[in-house]
Amino acid sequence: MKRKLAFMSALAGGLLVAGNGWAQEAAEEAGEVITAEYVQFMVNNIWILIAAALVFVMHLGFAMIESGLERSKNTVNILFKNGCIVAIGLLTYAAFGFNLMYPGDEWIAGNVFGFAGFGLSPGEDGQTMAYADGAYTYFTDFIFQGMFAATAATIVSGAVAGRIKLGSFLIFSTLFVGIVYPIIGSWKWGGGWLDQMGFYDFAGSTLVHGVGGFAALAGAIVLGPRLGKYIEGNIRPIVGHSMPLAALGMFLLWFGWFGFNGGSVLSADPDAVSFVFTTTALAAASGLLVAAGVSALVSKKPDLSMALNGALAGLVGITAGADVVSLLGAIIAGGVAGAIVVFAVIGFDKVKIDDPVGAISVHGVCGIWGTVAVGIFGGSEYSVGVQLLGALVAGATAFVLAFILFTILKVTLGIRVEEEVEYKGLDLVEHGQEAYGGFQVFSTE
Amino acid sequence: MKRKLAFMSALAGGLLVAGNGWAQEAAEEAGEVITAEYVQFMVNNIWILIAAALVFVMHLGFAMIESGLERSKNTVNILFKNGCIVAIGLLTYAAFGFNLMYPGDEWIAGNVFGFAGFGLSPGEDGQTMAYADGAYTYFTDFIFQGMFAATAATIVSGAVAGRIKLGSFLIFSTLFVGIVYPIIGSWKWGGGWLDQMGFYDFAGSTLVHGVGGFAALAGAIVLGPRLGKYIEGNIRPIVGHSMPLAALGMFLLWFGWFGFNGGSVLSADPDAVSFVFTTTALAAASGLLVAAGVSALVSKKPDLSMALNGALAGLVGITAGADVVSLLGAIIAGGVAGAIVVFAVIGFDKVKIDDPVGAISVHGVCGIWGTVAVGIFGGSEYSVGVQLLGALVAGATAFVLAFILFTILKVTLGIRVEEEVEYKGLDLVEHGQEAYGGFQVFSTE
Amino acid sequence: MKRKLAFMSALAGGLLVAGNGWAQEAAEEAGEVITAEYVQFMVNNIWILIAAALVFVMHLGFAMIESGLERSKNTVNILFKNGCIVAIGLLTYAAFGFNLMYPGDEWIAGNVFGFAGFGLSPGEDGQTMAYADGAYTYFTDFIFQGMFAATAATIVSGAVAGRIKLGSFLIFSTLFVGIVYPIIGSWKWGGGWLDQMGFYDFAGSTLVHGVGGFAALAGAIVLGPRLGKYIEGNIRPIVGHSMPLAALGMFLLWFGWFGFNGGSVLSADPDAVSFVFTTTALAAASGLLVAAGVSALVSKKPDLSMALNGALAGLVGITAGADVVSLLGAIIAGGVAGAIVVFAVIGFDKVKIDDPVGAISVHGVCGIWGTVAVGIFGGSEYSVGVQLLGALVAGATAFVLAFILFTILKVTLGIRVEEEVEYKGLDLVEHGQEAYGGFQVFSTE
Repeated sequence: MKRKLAFMSALAGGLLVAGNGWAQEAAEEAGEVITAEYVQFMVNNIWILIAAALVFVMHLGFAMIESGLERSKNTVNILFKNGCIVAIGLLTYAAFGFNLMYPGDEWIAGNVFGFAGFGLSPGEDGQTMAYADGAYTYFTDFIFQGMFAATAATIVSGAVAGRIKLGSFLIFSTLFVGIVYPIIGSWKWGGGWLDQMGFYDFAGSTLVHGVGGFAALAGAIVLGPRLGKYIEGNIRPIVGHSMPLAALGMFLLWFGWFGFNGGSVLSADPDAVSFVFTTTALAAASGLLVAAGVSALVSKKPDLSMALNGALAGLVGITAGADVVSLLGAIIAGGVAGAIVVFAVIGFDKVKIDDPVGAISVHGVCGIWGTVAVGIFGGSEYSVGVQLLGALVAGATAFVLAFILFTILKVTLGIRVEEEVEYKGLDLVEHGQEAYGGFQVFSTE
Repeated sequence: MKRKLAFMSALAGGLLVAGNGWAQEAAEEAGEVITAEYVQFMVNNIWILIAAALVFVMHLGFAMIESGLERSKNTVNILFKNGCIVAIGLLTYAAFGFNLMYPGDEWIAGNVFGFAGFGLSPGEDGQTMAYADGAYTYFTDFIFQGMFAATAATIVSGAVAGRIKLGSFLIFSTLFVGIVYPIIGSWKWGGGWLDQMGFYDFAGSTLVHGVGGFAALAGAIVLGPRLGKYIEGNIRPIVGHSMPLAALGMFLLWFGWFGFNGGSVLSADPDAVSFVFTTTALAAASGLLVAAGVSALVSKKPDLSMALNGALAGLVGITAGADVVSLLGAIIAGGVAGAIVVFAVIGFDKVKIDDPVGAISVHGVCGIWGTVAVGIFGGSEYSVGVQLLGALVAGATAFVLAFILFTILKVTLGIRVEEEVEYKGLDLVEHGQEAYGGFQVFSTE
Repeated sequence: MKRKLAFMSALAGGLLVAGNGWAQEAAEEAGEVITAEYVQFMVNNIWILIAAALVFVMHLGFAMIESGLERSKNTVNILFKNGCIVAIGLLTYAAFGFNLMYPGDEWIAGNVFGFAGFGLSPGEDGQTMAYADGAYTYFTDFIFQGMFAATAATIVSGAVAGRIKLGSFLIFSTLFVGIVYPIIGSWKWGGGWLDQMGFYDFAGSTLVHGVGGFAALAGAIVLGPRLGKYIEGNIRPIVGHSMPLAALGMFLLWFGWFGFNGGSVLSADPDAVSFVFTTTALAAASGLLVAAGVSALVSKKPDLSMALNGALAGLVGITAGADVVSLLGAIIAGGVAGAIVVFAVIGFDKVKIDDPVGAISVHGVCGIWGTVAVGIFGGSEYSVGVQLLGALVAGATAFVLAFILFTILKVTLGIRVEEEVEYKGLDLVEHGQEAYGGFQVFSTE
């Protein structure tokens, strides 16, 4: 009991920050002259905050594309999961995730695991003027990184849709987003061992998308495919219930990605942010068109789901090197990702790994590609070998830890709903709600 | 007739501002040196403008969650109302609302009612360099506050959905958003009597959400419940027609709330805005999870509508004190709001007040809670008593005035559609349109 | 073969820009003092980038409103087209469109046609510090203008929905957005002949919306109406399949328009941007209400589609003069546009030009109106005659060139799908996909 109290107290201590006495106000009251450097800090800071809001939109994008690409009978369940993940992600990140990811000097096991304590610690006197890179406040740092954290678990959500037990998924998500994600993230962004060996991952092709994508793979394997997906050696396509929702999701993700990548500059540096916006947009454009084209060649029809996933693949593919590749490199990196995603989706189906939304292909496979692409298009200071190594180790770690978590849940609480529940849909049985209960079509043409 | 002409001329005078001769251009042409203070002004200003655009997104959020939570037969009507309210809100605010809310020295009746005249008056020479708090232009002030104004009426819209006459609702909205909302708002934000007694409401738990929520209560009472909702003492749930729309609405509202609260700092102060972003996000997260959990305990199933409303409740609950509560206070304030909303929704149903979207609970009840929470978590300078008093007086005023307006409309034009219209749906009869007329499902699984 | 190689090499040369060595970092490393002017540049730049992201949202808005206003059987096709257009627009703009639109000194034929070469050329050393208007980086310029480029083709997409062959539309779009749009744009924004004769178009009532709208007219004429629209002299309304999608689209377009117009200030000048936000919002509000009112008078029922299109009409109507008209001028310009759009939609139907979403009326007709409105409400330096001339010449050029392109496609590849395809819907036949394949409604009320 005492330990629990200590934890609560540390947590509360870290969270008991009063919001008064702002710097700007204080400086002006003191009659101090506003300097250009202070205003530069303001610009940097407000941009990262806006970028954080844009990354938040990505969670909406994921909720829309995932529910759009699954059947209507599991829609409430998907929306519920995605809402909870954002909330869980932010709260666990505040409670311990942020300090696991950025341990500062508090490394415990080599440069592999560190922890700077529970709660948030914005500095003395309740002031929040702690800088990171001399550019933005502690809370800006927290909220921007916190918005990233939940992303990794959301990626998993898509791959396990339609058959996972709600409770088990929420427990997995809490542990994954609260502990696994930040520890792997600390290896690079926290200054850990991957960072020290020269590994580069600008905004998270590996650390966010690869980590999420390979955990998704673990989930899909442990769960097995949805009922009726693979019958007697045949692949039976299970189509989504709303392509407008899926398209809405893709566009919102692309929109949010301007914050995901643009904010990862960690300042409002004009050259850097505008360059990152350009590479990001060109890679997405290239990924969309190549995936659309390749899918038209492969399946004779231009497939909208593939085009949407192609844009996301292009975005994942540019994320590791958005600031260092050339424009042509960005277009190629995005285009290759668009091609990869088509074949990866087909390939996973062939080996009967059922991923309702293509999350493993988009985020896992293209996450590796994007990381390696830095070595190819980013100039001589980046090594293809180191990039590949980092991507594989991070991906493998995420896979193994997620596999262990899912397996423990499987043998304890169970992770898969019963056949009847899956047949009727998770909405009715798990939530007692239908997504479209009050929907009535009067006339059809 | 003469009076009317005078009105038109005053209005036109206030609106005849030419848009030429911008400060930056002028200064540069004059060869003046750009100072850090000027650039600080630029940063503050552009942030409030971006925040205004984010608050605009909240209107989309309301339109989506309200139509999602009602039946498809009233969808066109809800969308039409929500579109009109934004437009009415902006135009009435330009014509007189802004000057009712910020009377400056032009108080007419104590510090309870003031009016600075019709139209907008950005200062001499058509220049717009009037500052408020030394930080942003007159038009930035107008557009940011104008985006808030329409919110109050939109909140009412949800509670009266499915049975109110379109014309009467639009007349109510015009009067409520144009006159009632700004007068109550002037009590605090215009420097009126609530402000002078030390009442605190950072971004509008009371002044926006409480005011809207208690007007919604008046509307729901005067209108009565939808047909078939309460039959022989039983509550018959009327389910929404699209949970993806509802979820889309919640996420967009959360997104817009970063502007609603973040912009209410009224500058781009790095500490303040980043702290407000953090408390806002944590309260929403906490509200969502607590509402999901409590609803699962109460009704045995984790309810998506409750989770969505829980997030909004958390946001309303933090809005009054987002800049002054501690982080733990934000989490508790949001979580308590999440619990309150579940019991309030159940409670209003028990007393047969039919609120299709839970607007009274989310905005009214949690608006009071959020205001009081400032007294609990905001430090010793805020009094629970004063906070409660202010919230109750503002809420009661909104309730009484809305009740009067709705009652006058009831006995004159009528406010409730006929039974047959309600049965067939407002879309077909009031608009001659179906929301999903061209919708055809080819195959279902 | 050699020519092709030379092209590829020029293209690659222009795109081979490495992203390293950012200005801010470099300056700080060199120990240079940050000046207020540099920070002003930062503010301007980040605002234009945020505005570019907002303009990107408009593409989502178009995708939503177009699919919402057409039948569900053509939804996948519309979403696919809209996704591809953004991608094609960005890539062609990078490859040659940007340099066609802003030829600098490289005019080839008078001030009518110029070309500054293939690829992007951000200046020596891979540095991107080239300013435009002394305010933002080369890449900011590119990405902001690039987001505009795709808009013109997206406007066409709505008018030709439901019957155009996918391949032919994509070829048309590539040529239109890559070549026609930037050449006409160069006449004003590139400093060409329209600019030199005093024509004014702040953000593109003519150059974007007029150009898109009149190309849409050409498309609708060459294609002919959808099957069953005009039967034996009667107009048979073909209703949309999802009004929530349509409303979502309108709100997102309005949201994005804050970037479209606000970013067109080309700086974060506080007066100018806040004034433009205000005129933009008031014109949209006015357009929405007037269109709703006029439609209620004309067709006895307040029509949601008209209200939505009215808001867009108001936005198009203010776009040419958002920075120079008075507030009352903005309200009138928007309101007149709202009335125009109702009669234009009815008028085009009378002459059997079938435009499923009203794009010709909203963008073409109101684009001319908005351009002329600058001459009426913008002060004495703007001539109604010059404005009208410019709008008509630009619109006519877009019409003629689009007509030629569509006609060539018609006689070669064909542009209209076969009757059976149109009857079954483009989704099933062109894409082998249904928009709502997995949609299943369990219960209806």
